[in-house]
Amino acid sequence: MRGVILNGPGDVRVEDRPDPTIEQPTDAIIRVVATCVCGSDLWPFRGVDASGGPAPMGHEYVGIVEEVGSAVESTRLGQFVVGSFFASDNTCPICRAGYQSHCVHREPVGAIGAQAEYLRVPLADGTLVATPEMPDEDLVPSLLAASDVLGTGWFAADAAQAGPGKTVVVVGDGAVGLLGVLAARHKGAERIIAMSRHADRQKLALEFGATDIVTERGDEGVARVKELTDSLGAHSTIEAVGTQESMMQAIHSTRAGGHVGFVGVSHDVRIEGTPLFFSGVHLHGGPAPVRRFLPELIGLIVDRKIDPGKVFDLRLPLDEAAEGYRAMDERRAVKTLLELS
Amino acid sequence: MRGVILNGPGDVRVEDRPDPTIEQPTDAIIRVVATCVCGSDLWPFRGVDASGGPAPMGHEYVGIVEEVGSAVESTRLGQFVVGSFFASDNTCPICRAGYQSHCVHREPVGAIGAQAEYLRVPLADGTLVATPEMPDEDLVPSLLAASDVLGTGWFAADAAQAGPGKTVVVVGDGAVGLLGVLAARHKGAERIIAMSRHADRQKLALEFGATDIVTERGDEGVARVKELTDSLGAHSTIEAVGTQESMMQAIHSTRAGGHVGFVGVSHDVRIEGTPLFFSGVHLHGGPAPVRRFLPELIGLIVDRKIDPGKVFDLRLPLDEAAEGYRAMDERRAVKTLLELS
Repeated sequence: MRGVILNGPGDVRVEDRPDPTIEQPTDAIIRVVATCVCGSDLWPFRGVDASGGPAPMGHEYVGIVEEVGSAVESTRLGQFVVGSFFASDNTCPICRAGYQSHCVHREPVGAIGAQAEYLRVPLADGTLVATPEMPDEDLVPSLLAASDVLGTGWFAADAAQAGPGKTVVVVGDGAVGLLGVLAARHKGAERIIAMSRHADRQKLALEFGATDIVTERGDEGVARVKELTDSLGAHSTIEAVGTQESMMQAIHSTRAGGHVGFVGVSHDVRIEGTPLFFSGVHLHGGPAPVRRFLPELIGLIVDRKIDPGKVFDLRLPLDEAAEGYRAMDERRAVKTLLELS
Repeated sequence: MRGVILNGPGDVRVEDRPDPTIEQPTDAIIRVVATCVCGSDLWPFRGVDASGGPAPMGHEYVGIVEEVGSAVESTRLGQFVVGSFFASDNTCPICRAGYQSHCVHREPVGAIGAQAEYLRVPLADGTLVATPEMPDEDLVPSLLAASDVLGTGWFAADAAQAGPGKTVVVVGDGAVGLLGVLAARHKGAERIIAMSRHADRQKLALEFGATDIVTERGDEGVARVKELTDSLGAHSTIEAVGTQESMMQAIHSTRAGGHVGFVGVSHDVRIEGTPLFFSGVHLHGGPAPVRRFLPELIGLIVDRKIDPGKVFDLRLPLDEAAEGYRAMDERRAVKTLLELS
């Protein structure tokens, strides 16, 4: 099969890879219908995360079940399924509490590589959620978004306790931040302040439900949020970047007793204890337990209540994956969808 | 009047100070019935927090209302009252959300100095809570505990979401940690693991409801907690120390999706983003909004449902405050109550 390999910083190629096979009786093999490039894929692409040689890439996927292991029960051949970046058993105490991304048996799908024609999905029954029927083709981008960026934005809004009567700040205008705006809107937030300095992303934020745009960053961004909130700060803040500046901007933009949901993969973050202590905020985040939200998100998408697929502003065939990475790296695209023929 | 002054590291004296007077129409003057020495008073006593010259000390107090300003309405002369370390208006949006320690008009009582015969309490109506009637003398230590250490332990247990079916870890065996054990027990926690290596404090933790004692610290302490919790970690962890080691011990002792309530005043804490991100815990804490809990706590105390006054293992007249500080500094006492004649 064809699949994306990162050979070194900036060197993405689509190469022939061995077809995946059932390795564990709980595995399934899916034929990938669509996959995409994640903001977090750009870290190794840029050489920021050291890579130990050629590596398969991708952890976002929708597809059709082609083969299942002998212990697979609920996942059936021919189903259209959505999975997420951690395979999970969905039965351990951590999963049952809704934290499937920390499942005691979790396996990172990124290490297997979803940017490919076929994908082996471990713990298939716990990981995959099927659509009620074969979805219309125009729903595929939204279902693919549910696999990570929508599920992650949803978790961030949940962790930030966005809801009716709340003012929500969203730090980060990538796909996750933009879908955090959509999630906050769906959850009934009264006011949604998107922090963005890019016209195309501001436009999408407004389409997804943002009520205010703040272009300032850091301390100036915090001051602007305070101006908009009677000097109190937001009730809820979504942090979707993962840098020291964005994390402190999120904490300081939030009122005491408010909630910060942080989902930007942490890179240079180091939180000083004293400002955190005196901020009085709630802090919760990490790798999103997307599996918890998939049934609800799939329902909203097939009922056409939400349209998260709009975040894909570039669609390319899998073979042109390298251009998809470059376009996101150079900020020419918010998010690249890779189509399989 | 007589009052405690810290003249420099280790130099606590009881000196003559001017009697307080009404400065704002919302002030009240109380005659202090009992006050005490806080673990946080030891930081400036030890010279860790730089002091800018002689400073009045103390922020825990119960007393009788002696005088009120012209704008004071609900606080009445002769009432027995309990207040906390931040005066708060109890009407601003932050107070109404239950975060009175972050009130937009808050004033630190510690800067006024509660270790004295009389105390000016700002924002009296918002700050002070009266007992239903004049309490029996034996209840005074418990009511004084409500002023800070009980209220802080209670907030920590609340922030950690201690409750039925939960395993709660308590890091720190000072008065706040011990009363965190009591709070977790009252909230119905199933299992309470107190981390302590001092026999007298272990004994009190068990009296307050701890089910297990762990003497190991740091990584070894975390490993021991994991052994006791099927390798998962606790649902809820109270952090009541405020050091880097104790904070990381608390985070790593907690399962993904669990809650850490941190109330140890942060000193050298610096939380690395990556382990926090991948921990999946909820983090909430800071200066406790004791005012939120005072009505409930006073009710439990006067109904003799809880006996937090047990944390006072040394009682001295105000004039012997210096010995009270030394006894706590040298760990000869858990907490010193200062009596006024």
